[in-house]
Amino acid sequence: MIKVSVIGSGNVGFHLIKLFHNSKGIELCEWYSRTLNFDKRIKVVNELSNLNQADVYIICVSDESISKVSNELTFNEKLVLHTSGSTPFDAINKKNRRGVFYPLQTFSKSKDLNYSNIPICIESEDKNDLELLKILSNKVGCKFYEINFEQRKTLHLAAIITNNFTNFLFSLSKELVEAKDLDFDILKPLIKETVNKIHKLDPNEAQTGPARRNDSNIMKTHQKMLIDKNQKKLYKIISEMIIEKYGN
Amino acid sequence: MIKVSVIGSGNVGFHLIKLFHNSKGIELCEWYSRTLNFDKRIKVVNELSNLNQADVYIICVSDESISKVSNELTFNEKLVLHTSGSTPFDAINKKNRRGVFYPLQTFSKSKDLNYSNIPICIESEDKNDLELLKILSNKVGCKFYEINFEQRKTLHLAAIITNNFTNFLFSLSKELVEAKDLDFDILKPLIKETVNKIHKLDPNEAQTGPARRNDSNIMKTHQKMLIDKNQKKLYKIISEMIIEKYGN
Repeated sequence: MIKVSVIGSGNVGFHLIKLFHNSKGIELCEWYSRTLNFDKRIKVVNELSNLNQADVYIICVSDESISKVSNELTFNEKLVLHTSGSTPFDAINKKNRRGVFYPLQTFSKSKDLNYSNIPICIESEDKNDLELLKILSNKVGCKFYEINFEQRKTLHLAAIITNNFTNFLFSLSKELVEAKDLDFDILKPLIKETVNKIHKLDPNEAQTGPARRNDSNIMKTHQKMLIDKNQKKLYKIISEMIIEKYGN
Repeated sequence: MIKVSVIGSGNVGFHLIKLFHNSKGIELCEWYSRTLNFDKRIKVVNELSNLNQADVYIICVSDESISKVSNELTFNEKLVLHTSGSTPFDAINKKNRRGVFYPLQTFSKSKDLNYSNIPICIESEDKNDLELLKILSNKVGCKFYEINFEQRKTLHLAAIITNNFTNFLFSLSKELVEAKDLDFDILKPLIKETVNKIHKLDPNEAQTGPARRNDSNIMKTHQKMLIDKNQKKLYKIISEMIIEKYGN
């Protein structure tokens, strides 16, 4: 039984609490959450100094607060992890053993998740702790990857591009079709297939469209249709990058 | 029984042939395909003038060839459709009745599809033909939408953004992670969830990430990490658009 406490009640903290709460072989000790609880069986503390004994403490706060929070912990030589894609483990105060437990997924409190598919990027200062992180990942049913800081930063950047930017393209498309009295739902089968495709084909092979075949008439028409200056710029830059990549 | 012939053997023609070939209530008459066949039961012709009697002819060629192909048809007063998102139906020679059968999906010959989920955008010059297009869509198990040209152009643009541009972001991410000896597969659960999310949440609500919370440190770091000039520009423009949208 691994004893875990979670610090923070943002999107990541909220979902890790749910994950640990429902995992056999994990004893969820405490949740440092100043405002939020959703299950009376979870022991919530609202002072860092009130945190009791656990094997692993996971700090789920904004990148710039990791250091401050870790300084305020009143215990030593425990395994303290953060969940950031862009922060080295040595942001954590060295009075404790340090490591990273970065779940490569998008979390919103209002959206349930199948936790078993989340890749966990693990890193630790000490080799023994890495073994503990592997066991912890297995116990919650996730797949772990040993990832160093350079790799993790790149994964985080790639996650921004594949998730945040993609989602933004969805919201932009929604805006465009709704302005013509069309329901965004009409685009959903296409969006679904866009992702199904890359489970079968390399995205380089799956690329289609006017930029892929360098159809300048359509590209000009589309840029004219977009009234917003930034939307025009966005269309232009991605099209140019596709043209450059495929060498038409 | 509706008699259909298909003209063209690109990605759309290829998949429409498969769709009609496997649909009850459709008699697939002929396929104008100069190079390709995959089933001996399909009658292929390689001269437009050899096309025989059908109720509906569907032209699946590049936008700029629609007009030329329709001029070369040797029959009159038949229902002739094209499948383009960006072309008015009057690109088709008016010696025949004219309309549009635009499947809002991404097609690659090497990727099988579940045809039942494809939205078909239909339009016709004549009201009676619209009824025939509705029946045709129903017979192949697809959902139809009556869409005028203005709407269809916007749907096509939105399809480019949600499919082509999104897929390009996937290929860019693949390139970035592979340069750090990581497998693109590690990003796939995130990509899958990005799309699952918009089936539950509005994409505006699903938006997360550094630009959403206006975290300038991370955004600067990411732009530094991207060595390619266009990649930097792409990161910057999308981030600025997200910041502008959410008003941080």
